[in-house]
Amino acid sequence: MRVRIVVTALAFAGLAAAQSTRRQASLVVIGGTVITENARHDILSPGAIAISGTDIVDIDRPEVIAGRYRASETIDARDQIVLPGLINTHTHAPMVMYRGLADDLSLMKWLQEYIFPAEAKTVSPEMVRIGTRLAALEMIESGTTTYADMYYFEEEIARAERFITAFKGDSLIVPAVAPHAMYTNDEATLKAAAALARRHDVPLIIHLAETEDEVKTSREQHRTTPASYLESIGFWGPKTLAAHGVWVSDDEIQILKQRGVGVSHNPESNMKLASGTAPVTKYLAAGVALGLGTDGAASNNDLDMFEAMRQASFLAKHAMHDPTVVPAATALDLATIGGARALGMEKAIGSLEPGKRADLITVSMRAPRQTPLYDPISHIVYVTRGDDVRTTIVNGKVLMRNRQIRTLDRTAVIAAANQLAPRVRDAVKH
Amino acid sequence: MRVRIVVTALAFAGLAAAQSTRRQASLVVIGGTVITENARHDILSPGAIAISGTDIVDIDRPEVIAGRYRASETIDARDQIVLPGLINTHTHAPMVMYRGLADDLSLMKWLQEYIFPAEAKTVSPEMVRIGTRLAALEMIESGTTTYADMYYFEEEIARAERFITAFKGDSLIVPAVAPHAMYTNDEATLKAAAALARRHDVPLIIHLAETEDEVKTSREQHRTTPASYLESIGFWGPKTLAAHGVWVSDDEIQILKQRGVGVSHNPESNMKLASGTAPVTKYLAAGVALGLGTDGAASNNDLDMFEAMRQASFLAKHAMHDPTVVPAATALDLATIGGARALGMEKAIGSLEPGKRADLITVSMRAPRQTPLYDPISHIVYVTRGDDVRTTIVNGKVLMRNRQIRTLDRTAVIAAANQLAPRVRDAVKH
Repeated sequence: MRVRIVVTALAFAGLAAAQSTRRQASLVVIGGTVITENARHDILSPGAIAISGTDIVDIDRPEVIAGRYRASETIDARDQIVLPGLINTHTHAPMVMYRGLADDLSLMKWLQEYIFPAEAKTVSPEMVRIGTRLAALEMIESGTTTYADMYYFEEEIARAERFITAFKGDSLIVPAVAPHAMYTNDEATLKAAAALARRHDVPLIIHLAETEDEVKTSREQHRTTPASYLESIGFWGPKTLAAHGVWVSDDEIQILKQRGVGVSHNPESNMKLASGTAPVTKYLAAGVALGLGTDGAASNNDLDMFEAMRQASFLAKHAMHDPTVVPAATALDLATIGGARALGMEKAIGSLEPGKRADLITVSMRAPRQTPLYDPISHIVYVTRGDDVRTTIVNGKVLMRNRQIRTLDRTAVIAAANQLAPRVRDAVKH
Repeated sequence: MRVRIVVTALAFAGLAAAQSTRRQASLVVIGGTVITENARHDILSPGAIAISGTDIVDIDRPEVIAGRYRASETIDARDQIVLPGLINTHTHAPMVMYRGLADDLSLMKWLQEYIFPAEAKTVSPEMVRIGTRLAALEMIESGTTTYADMYYFEEEIARAERFITAFKGDSLIVPAVAPHAMYTNDEATLKAAAALARRHDVPLIIHLAETEDEVKTSREQHRTTPASYLESIGFWGPKTLAAHGVWVSDDEIQILKQRGVGVSHNPESNMKLASGTAPVTKYLAAGVALGLGTDGAASNNDLDMFEAMRQASFLAKHAMHDPTVVPAATALDLATIGGARALGMEKAIGSLEPGKRADLITVSMRAPRQTPLYDPISHIVYVTRGDDVRTTIVNGKVLMRNRQIRTLDRTAVIAAANQLAPRVRDAVKH
């Protein structure tokens, strides 16, 4: 907050004096409507953001920021909306390689005849690298700055421990322990996973009650529902994230709330796979830390968090027979600060505030389908797509500017995926 | 079909001979995967299309079309998907001016406190012209080549008769009679509207059973359900289009089928306004002519028919608890040939076939979110947006090429809408 005090004093001295003693910022994003997603839900129109290194150091009116900082790089965001980078709380990034490989199938047929055979024959460190790069490219291009991933090579406890050690303290990667689901692990493995996560103070992620079948199986095997069973073996705690959480009772919602569990709602995947309707309004009423996810691209079929917001709003209204639930502002909360809370990262990300990481995006609002513009939050949720994102900044670093990707070789990433694709297709030929 | 015979003979004579006697085409679209949506659901990969004036004259492999035709203009669609222009069977085009003006409200509050006051104060020939141009721009940019509109200035029978006469025989505009809904018209008006439409052999369009309230009102006032009431007064017949059709019984579906009524399904509007779930799988099973619509942008909030396809698939799977219903191919049918049938225009539009109007679009498939590409129809429905459309051709005329609009002044259209917007906003200030 030192910056604020110094700068306020300078502002009194007038712009000329201020300019001679302006602080150095690594990056200034100036102009545009800034949706902060802070506790007061401040919107500055226009606003500007000063970034130093990895962090946001100041947010104020453009002329104030211009008077306080000289910047190594300045991004002009006039006519755009500036908002926190979107947080995808549940995906399986390398599964972009299985996007559109098989659709419109029953879950079991889809898994057993397509996804599992494709994975058995094509998952490798190389496939995971190629797929993750493609997913990262797609996420950067559509404004996602944080994602919680679940995929292979984290499944074995021993390897997972090495994985955790390798990335502990990394500024961009948080290692997590992710036993797939309760129905694919025995009790000993689930307990060991939870113990491992707690020993290293890292997140613990699991699929929870995605389908009605999972509840049925749980009742048969454990005589209770999934969240209650996991409670009974001491699985839940802070830093746990439950993906989907579709078939949960009111009592289970209370368990999740009491244990500080984050929940990732995946409305598009749930609709496309006909999994059911997560009780979003109940989660919100109970104060559960709720975020949004796209799920893997094999079941969505993309990683666009704008569509996740829109679908979260539409599905809740539809399910509750009430067009007032999950209004646009709530959908945006879920994709930003809500997702940060679900991941236990709300002190670092999820809103634009001094002291937080500079994870932010700028979004164009000039398309005919965004004309006219009465309410920026309505447009962000109801008419914007990932393709409208112009700038993506993560940890203070500009990954995309004016839709030019800076940190990946876009052509090479797409070419590598296309080169691998025939092997995936051959793996599921019947 | 004469063209086909001549050309087949030439093909036997070899390319050199053929070239010297190539027929003149006004436009050839060459390369790309051509999804015809014809009765056999042929897909040519690669394919090419020859257009003469307003009509498609030939579809075949690129080298065959190149050998048969010399073209005034050639569009290279390699790496793209070519498909029939999308048909939006229900919208209120000028309502783009109310896009995002008010969301997340109960239907009555939304209508009575926002939409009706905004309309009372701002609907004018000028507003309709500005709004329609903006909507046309958005539709051209997102691949819609036909839309069924309902808005002001067609409501009075006398004026409607002049309107019908004015546009009778126009190659691009089909005048229709559109009494808004049964609950906003008395029986005499509904009968007069139907009689007028039949006298001039033009379509008759009405909102039908959009909300549960409408059914309740109908039961109270007419002691029967909406479609049954309209049947009892002789309203239904061929060339009638029922928009929404959410709350209909099995018996009413049979009435609509027997009378040859087209139905416009509007999944996004129905979800956002929490109107309910149209019985899509029942309509399909009964053989009702079913198309898709976006509804007006005030309740959607855009006119993107790709999103309508995706949502039609997602909503049906969700509602039926069955991920196999409304597969991608069915969703695409609904947005093309299904929409044409619903409008009674299937002889002219809805598929790419010689003799039909040249209404077609080309769609890019090169985005990271479209990589890899295993199944073009899956990608069209599950990962494509209007922004991926590169070329839009209506009636043989190129309205957009490489996203450059040819027939509207894009900047001026957007500027006019933005200039009008403050008046709309002021109209609903509380």
